[in-house]
Amino acid sequence: MTKILGRITLPSEDNFYEETKECMARLGADAIRDSDGTKLPDNIKDLDAKIYTTYFVAREHNEFAKANLDEVQQFYLLSEYTTALKDYVEIPFMKGYFKEQIQPDYRHDPKKWWEVINRTTDEIVDPKDWELNQEKDVVIIRNAKAYHQYTVTFLADALWDPTSMYNHITNDWGDREHQIPFNAIKPNSSEFMEDELKRWLKDNPKTDIVRFTTFFYHFTLVFNEEGKEKYVDWFGYSASVSPEILDAFEKEKGYRLRPEDIVDQGYYNSTYRVPSKEYLDYIDFLQIFVTQKAKRLVDLVHESGKEAVMFLGDNWIGTEPYGKHFKDIGLDGVVGSVGDGVTLRLISDIEGVDFTEGRFLPYFFPDTFYEGNDPTIESRQNWITARRAILRKPVNRIGYGGYLSLAYKFSNFMDFISDVADEFRTILEKIENTKPYASAKVAILNCWGKLRSWQPYIVAHGKWYKLSYSYMGMMEALSGMDMDVSFINFDDVKNGIPKDIDVIINAGDAYTAFSGGKYFADPEIVSELRRFVYEGGGLIGIGEPSAYQYNGHYFQLHDVFGVDREIGFSQSTNKYHNTELTKHFIIEDYHGMYSFGENIGNIYAISENTQILEYSDHEIHMAVNEYGEGRAFYMTGLPYSTANTRVLKRAIHWVAHKEEELHKYFADDLNVEVAAYPEIKEYAIVNNSDIEVEAKVFDGKGEEFTVILEPAEIRWISEE
Amino acid sequence: MTKILGRITLPSEDNFYEETKECMARLGADAIRDSDGTKLPDNIKDLDAKIYTTYFVAREHNEFAKANLDEVQQFYLLSEYTTALKDYVEIPFMKGYFKEQIQPDYRHDPKKWWEVINRTTDEIVDPKDWELNQEKDVVIIRNAKAYHQYTVTFLADALWDPTSMYNHITNDWGDREHQIPFNAIKPNSSEFMEDELKRWLKDNPKTDIVRFTTFFYHFTLVFNEEGKEKYVDWFGYSASVSPEILDAFEKEKGYRLRPEDIVDQGYYNSTYRVPSKEYLDYIDFLQIFVTQKAKRLVDLVHESGKEAVMFLGDNWIGTEPYGKHFKDIGLDGVVGSVGDGVTLRLISDIEGVDFTEGRFLPYFFPDTFYEGNDPTIESRQNWITARRAILRKPVNRIGYGGYLSLAYKFSNFMDFISDVADEFRTILEKIENTKPYASAKVAILNCWGKLRSWQPYIVAHGKWYKLSYSYMGMMEALSGMDMDVSFINFDDVKNGIPKDIDVIINAGDAYTAFSGGKYFADPEIVSELRRFVYEGGGLIGIGEPSAYQYNGHYFQLHDVFGVDREIGFSQSTNKYHNTELTKHFIIEDYHGMYSFGENIGNIYAISENTQILEYSDHEIHMAVNEYGEGRAFYMTGLPYSTANTRVLKRAIHWVAHKEEELHKYFADDLNVEVAAYPEIKEYAIVNNSDIEVEAKVFDGKGEEFTVILEPAEIRWISEE
Repeated sequence: MTKILGRITLPSEDNFYEETKECMARLGADAIRDSDGTKLPDNIKDLDAKIYTTYFVAREHNEFAKANLDEVQQFYLLSEYTTALKDYVEIPFMKGYFKEQIQPDYRHDPKKWWEVINRTTDEIVDPKDWELNQEKDVVIIRNAKAYHQYTVTFLADALWDPTSMYNHITNDWGDREHQIPFNAIKPNSSEFMEDELKRWLKDNPKTDIVRFTTFFYHFTLVFNEEGKEKYVDWFGYSASVSPEILDAFEKEKGYRLRPEDIVDQGYYNSTYRVPSKEYLDYIDFLQIFVTQKAKRLVDLVHESGKEAVMFLGDNWIGTEPYGKHFKDIGLDGVVGSVGDGVTLRLISDIEGVDFTEGRFLPYFFPDTFYEGNDPTIESRQNWITARRAILRKPVNRIGYGGYLSLAYKFSNFMDFISDVADEFRTILEKIENTKPYASAKVAILNCWGKLRSWQPYIVAHGKWYKLSYSYMGMMEALSGMDMDVSFINFDDVKNGIPKDIDVIINAGDAYTAFSGGKYFADPEIVSELRRFVYEGGGLIGIGEPSAYQYNGHYFQLHDVFGVDREIGFSQSTNKYHNTELTKHFIIEDYHGMYSFGENIGNIYAISENTQILEYSDHEIHMAVNEYGEGRAFYMTGLPYSTANTRVLKRAIHWVAHKEEELHKYFADDLNVEVAAYPEIKEYAIVNNSDIEVEAKVFDGKGEEFTVILEPAEIRWISEE
Repeated sequence: MTKILGRITLPSEDNFYEETKECMARLGADAIRDSDGTKLPDNIKDLDAKIYTTYFVAREHNEFAKANLDEVQQFYLLSEYTTALKDYVEIPFMKGYFKEQIQPDYRHDPKKWWEVINRTTDEIVDPKDWELNQEKDVVIIRNAKAYHQYTVTFLADALWDPTSMYNHITNDWGDREHQIPFNAIKPNSSEFMEDELKRWLKDNPKTDIVRFTTFFYHFTLVFNEEGKEKYVDWFGYSASVSPEILDAFEKEKGYRLRPEDIVDQGYYNSTYRVPSKEYLDYIDFLQIFVTQKAKRLVDLVHESGKEAVMFLGDNWIGTEPYGKHFKDIGLDGVVGSVGDGVTLRLISDIEGVDFTEGRFLPYFFPDTFYEGNDPTIESRQNWITARRAILRKPVNRIGYGGYLSLAYKFSNFMDFISDVADEFRTILEKIENTKPYASAKVAILNCWGKLRSWQPYIVAHGKWYKLSYSYMGMMEALSGMDMDVSFINFDDVKNGIPKDIDVIINAGDAYTAFSGGKYFADPEIVSELRRFVYEGGGLIGIGEPSAYQYNGHYFQLHDVFGVDREIGFSQSTNKYHNTELTKHFIIEDYHGMYSFGENIGNIYAISENTQILEYSDHEIHMAVNEYGEGRAFYMTGLPYSTANTRVLKRAIHWVAHKEEELHKYFADDLNVEVAAYPEIKEYAIVNNSDIEVEAKVFDGKGEEFTVILEPAEIRWISEE
């Protein structure tokens, strides 16, 4: 059989020509890229491969930046909460910030652009009552109230690109010059960005694909006095503000944003915050600005006969790929880092580009590729988790990054990723243009909806957080489950839940954007959700779904879920309904200990109709309820595991009244899943584990047979 | 040595004359009482003892009650939350209620006195849009909104006294007549109550002490359709309402209460709710009414030459003994049930009466006194816990209840309670009129303050609740600790924290009356608390102290405690401060596992100044902070244990800057405490355990010596 080639990007570097050719052949790679710290030499650029070259739009041009210091990027930042001890208080507002990154902007009149707030009364302090000591970076407030807390919101210059800075500090680059980020909204910078790209395109004829890393504004990443990360929000728009943007915003939207709309009490509009109207307006405004500017750069790339791809990260603010303006940029592709199934789908579901590419782990860096370590272990885990998601919606390419010379020394690893490449191409060949079988259509409901598809619960990209893993498990389970998944927000609910949705999931901590907070006090929203379930829809709640203390209840959909959370007020009401069911469709495959993640305490059944699937420590952790023609399932948390993945799949089937379709493209063993493609009459039986598994498999007609799968095996079966 | 006698009340019964005399001699008892289900015969009433006779004011007179059914006691009750499925919905508002207890009041115009509420929009439904089917007890709402929830608040008659009902159902009294409670505000009932008491006083010349059980209104206790407890709130005023009371309230206070002010979304103003102004006004109004009425009855008792005591429970609503009107009743004494140290102090701290009496456990009932069981075990536990509290503030008498004939069969038990009686009298003789040594003055801050001294966290009296034990442990620890304890509310804080307070404790779940909820958005309150600590005061927080999501923080006193709780919004802010101290004054005696009770998750340090005493599972459970001249201690929960008691004592010393006074009247062993009485120059070394203990003891000068104490021993030492 002829080996299919392509769809693979490898990094390369100087003095590695022959080995690069060898690796390309081994993996069937058709593209070569540079990486942080590496440059491709000409002989490699001449290989029979597409050449990706990283391009930085808003940094790496310090000569320009230093000549235009009034055009650096800016932040609105908040001082520490400072308590007045008498009628006079000084706030050294730079305390906690890294002076090599942040410098107060004294060019724009602080009395106009800054805000001093009494945080105890929530009142703005009259600018007449404060003054500024620019030598000491201190605000002095007079007529203060003793024991009230005050803050200063100040406009600041960003003197160092945060990613560049992170690499600089981490790799101890010493006195290497700091890369200064300049601002696309300013006249010289705007002009320079285009001129410089034109020049660069001319100077780099051998580049096939310009890999924008990325465009204009970095996600919020601020460092503390010790140069350590102080604040990180992968979605944060804080580093995009400037007087010019705010003026333009006012002109466009008809009202002015306050500095407080940006600093948001110090939460900086974290993606966990229920977004304000002002912040949503700002996001929309900035997206339009960024996509229009980015389009001009992409057009230049196209005019030079090259392709343009965007790295999904770093300076990606304003480009959100599920936003309504993204497609206007006209990009050819998007590349992003893949850590698991969720991050794979986060890339592969993007529409409006010709291709998506996942950069797999591990990165070819010395932290993994050192003697005595086996990088294959991480790589295999990465592949198994990503493969589940690829089988639902593939990226069109995969790639790696870092030093190829390092990976090259690990021959077993190179063999393994060669197998991955083959397996990936086999999958693509079969399913790239077909629709996978789905048991049900599931919509995840939160404040962000489609805009942040596959992005809920992320703080810093790829990191574990105590308040997210119990929900992220649900996302990870869904990323490779035989379900069509969409993301909706509360406006979508108000406009009428789309008819084709079988199941809605609402999951998150109370009052966060993921649970929904105040939206559950909106009669239209709760009514529409009740109607949806009552008429036969399915509802799944995880954590504190619909939580908003209002009108006698904490879970506003308590009647639908059949459960509520006791937060103290209704302890006087006796709660008798705590009989645990020993059997239920949803928990049939669940043997042994449950894992619910971070505990949401004191869940109780509101009536005897609620069926309790798990009750311990005087509280419910899993329950189901029938509501009219519809059904609901509740669980306190769903960290990722094969057992929880199965519970979620069964729960979706149950609430969607599709119990009878469970044993269709299904395997009994928790490690095994079946991905089917009716249009091509094939299905894949997939072992998601590192052990050999004997499983009972059910085909599309529900007919049963037994297979023995090798560790991590994917076996294709034809239905013809 | 002559045996001191008295201060002990025993129950007795018919046909038990000689044995009663014997028991009285054995215990040195000086009073005999009747109990539920027993009556004292004349020969016993002639013994040389004070005779207590139980008297029911508002029940046990069914002939009158049945002739005056329009004067029964009443409730405002709430129907179930009922969802409209179209523009018409029926609410069978009696669903869930026990028809033998509750009957809708159709005498008073429902259109005037009831309230139908759209709970989805929080709007009152126009009475024109609903009608009533009295045959079916159903409200029919027209022009309803589909998928909105509706409730009916209805005025109902109480046809059965709840305590009597509980006894009736529990003891299976079959067709014994139900006792109907009648209402002191109605004209005939009011007159009858006085006339009947006059008659009864005449008819019961041998009664020395009238034991009111109790006055007019029972705490809220409502039963469900199966006759099981549905709603219980030991503080609940719900059973005191009536059209007459509400009219009188309007006349006095100048505004009218809504039914919603009573049913409170179905929470019925539980003691855990931050009380509304309306509810506080109602409490005050009812207390004045009850105390004035009760005074007339007590006056009659006094006129007949007898004494009047009140049982603290059952129909005690409106008499709250720490309220400002209680003393107006003119009672001679208060009797209450003692389950532990807290319930002992709840009685013994009452002012304005000549004596307090604790009814100890176990009750002489067959559930404890059966062959093969040793009632001494419960009795000893009861005594040890109560004794700690007695040593701080003694009740003046103790007693028992139930069937003396049952207890009499358990000779070891009778010996044990004889010893208790002796020990109690010895304590009284020494300390009844002296002030115990206190290491510090501690004030517990919550919404109820002095009014509910020693009563925080109680739902039903004497029962364990999942949401209370982590705080109740703090109360129990304090009940016997060498501290002066007072209870203050937020008005007390606004009026200026009393100068003599060393330490303030704020403990409870967020948004409950015990934590304080919205009061922490009041600038005056947070400023005054900050000032108090900054100038040297001590602050202790347990659970979610000062919690109120507002202006960028969850714990409003985050700066004072040095910790806050992450509820999702500030996950983007890195939290580096998690280094646990291995040594600190507060945890010096703490060896082995900590116990924090119900977990308050995700507590973090707000700065590097916070000192962390316990950090696990990525969160803090115990921390201290210095704030100006003052100090704060935080702990997630403090269930009762000797180890936690010690932590609390040490924490109080530390925040009060009294570390050096710890080793004064102190024992190193956790089981041993020292209670000192400087005025009489004596102190008691007390073994609170059931085992022999060797302890190092420090006297008032800090001089150290070793003692070996028998199980439960109390040893008095003279300092002269």
